[in-house]
Amino acid sequence: MHRAGGMSEPENIVVRVATLPPPGPIGADVYAYRAEPLVPLQPGEIRVETLFASVDAGARAMIDPHASYPMKLRPGNRVPTSAIVGRVVESRNPAFGDGDHVRAFLVTRQQFLVLDPARHLGVKRVDPADGPLHLHLGTIGMTGFTAWLGITGIGRPRAGETVLVSAAAGAVGSVAGQIAKATGARVIGIAGGADKCRTVVERFGFDDCVDYKSPTFVAALAQACPDGVDVYFENVGGSVQRAAFASMNVFGRVVLCGQIAGYGGGDSAEATGVDLMVAINQRLTLRGYLSSDHLADLPRFEADMLQRVKAGALIPGATITAGFTNLHLAVNSLTSGRNIGQQIHQMTPP
Amino acid sequence: MHRAGGMSEPENIVVRVATLPPPGPIGADVYAYRAEPLVPLQPGEIRVETLFASVDAGARAMIDPHASYPMKLRPGNRVPTSAIVGRVVESRNPAFGDGDHVRAFLVTRQQFLVLDPARHLGVKRVDPADGPLHLHLGTIGMTGFTAWLGITGIGRPRAGETVLVSAAAGAVGSVAGQIAKATGARVIGIAGGADKCRTVVERFGFDDCVDYKSPTFVAALAQACPDGVDVYFENVGGSVQRAAFASMNVFGRVVLCGQIAGYGGGDSAEATGVDLMVAINQRLTLRGYLSSDHLADLPRFEADMLQRVKAGALIPGATITAGFTNLHLAVNSLTSGRNIGQQIHQMTPP
Repeated sequence: MHRAGGMSEPENIVVRVATLPPPGPIGADVYAYRAEPLVPLQPGEIRVETLFASVDAGARAMIDPHASYPMKLRPGNRVPTSAIVGRVVESRNPAFGDGDHVRAFLVTRQQFLVLDPARHLGVKRVDPADGPLHLHLGTIGMTGFTAWLGITGIGRPRAGETVLVSAAAGAVGSVAGQIAKATGARVIGIAGGADKCRTVVERFGFDDCVDYKSPTFVAALAQACPDGVDVYFENVGGSVQRAAFASMNVFGRVVLCGQIAGYGGGDSAEATGVDLMVAINQRLTLRGYLSSDHLADLPRFEADMLQRVKAGALIPGATITAGFTNLHLAVNSLTSGRNIGQQIHQMTPP
Repeated sequence: MHRAGGMSEPENIVVRVATLPPPGPIGADVYAYRAEPLVPLQPGEIRVETLFASVDAGARAMIDPHASYPMKLRPGNRVPTSAIVGRVVESRNPAFGDGDHVRAFLVTRQQFLVLDPARHLGVKRVDPADGPLHLHLGTIGMTGFTAWLGITGIGRPRAGETVLVSAAAGAVGSVAGQIAKATGARVIGIAGGADKCRTVVERFGFDDCVDYKSPTFVAALAQACPDGVDVYFENVGGSVQRAAFASMNVFGRVVLCGQIAGYGGGDSAEATGVDLMVAINQRLTLRGYLSSDHLADLPRFEADMLQRVKAGALIPGATITAGFTNLHLAVNSLTSGRNIGQQIHQMTPP
């Protein structure tokens, strides 16, 4: 735990909001990386050095006072993350030893986290032999869980149906499409740019992928879905949403997972708003959900996904931005849509 | 059957679209009332003189080329109605005799209808002793059926929950609210104007009703729903929809019945469009439906509703516009929101 040299007090570095940015990509000045004293452990607690932290779709919206997002941050607030993986550096819990790798959910971004496995959410030892550690932040983490719940619990595609997945190259979409594909459905992605569309088809195994930035998007979507859409996995809102809704078959299901277009900040930011008349004419069911309501299903999800990943039946995707003080670059990577799969912040010590 | 005088051939009068009107209230020139020869009956058929025809929310949208409505009419087309009641004037069907009163669904507007009870939808003898004949066009007709399906099949309020009903003074809303109230829910209406709101509370027994035309609408809605909204019965779209969505409790249900605001023509016509982020944050289920998918439930509905009406447990509402060639006035009554309950066209012969 104690740093080489040992002359100064050991310190933690905590990520806080320094200033709320104007619209668009954010600068390094948005976050402050402050040295703060380490607090002593209480019985049962462990100290974990963060190695990787998840960067989530809401990361930009949380610091945008105008975004329709439930969590709002103000200057001085600690910056949350949906999940981290790290290494135990000190333990007062007999179930965890120095050097163990652990995952935790819904913590804040800091170099050394104090976790009470009995109290904090999802604190669990992970095995580096299962794959890259950051797998537990994406494919077998909260975003993978969100994808899994939306397809297996809400969309429930049947073999031969058409499933349309927006933000198909992203952390949730890339997993949602692969899970849908495994049910025997025909799976079409929507992504931004020819390169990402190619990745969606070639790496993640979708049947086809349509570029929403193309001027022929609407026609290409119709061509890719000749039998219409039975399940739409909705991640984006805006004009992509409107085009997808117009493709729905009668009795179709819309999995309302996210509305990235309304989160602000990225070049995909645009006005949301959909005319629900199509939901009446086509007798659609739209269901919004949050993975936090379904935590009892986590162990079943993790076992299922680990087995799929080990069998090569599910290809994880991740984009890693390294450097402790580069969180803004990781957020910009996500909001600009440059990332493939889960956006990860590798918290290499400064 | 044969008219007094008998010098000319007996004739039928058929209502057709003469011209597609510009936006706004429609004129008498929109419909043509053409004399056409009567066709002889085939075995099994009956000839029915139309007494009352339903005027439905889609009546204006059908003749508006820009409305997002599934049925479009062009000049020359016959004008449909969701239901009529009439009197048998000639019969080649042993189950129906001259003078019987019958109801029929999904026919066109004309003085003398030729119906084959084995082939046409919902042809059924009705008993004038059960109440006004036009009851079978509203409360115990297609609009009542729509209300009943939405509350009992989709919204499913539980005792103590709050149900919000838009277009609460209308044919569907007035019935939906009363059925919801009978489940033990607290029922709040939304209607246009203080008079209609008073009618919704005093005649139809809602707990409260909020005037969407009032400048304090949003605040009044919040005050009327202090515990939030569990079931929203959606008839209108637009700004009323957005205010209602913002009031939803977690795990709320939205019954997507209609989007009158988008149908065009009336003074309630406005841009629709809702940000579905609230459906994610509040984990809402939105379900669109059409009563035509559920016709097998009609007999159960009719028995249930007739019993409620006879017991005084459900108050029917109707606004009647008389005069065969006054269909445009009946349509304007509906789109202007002047009607209470079902808008009926009494087809008094010209």
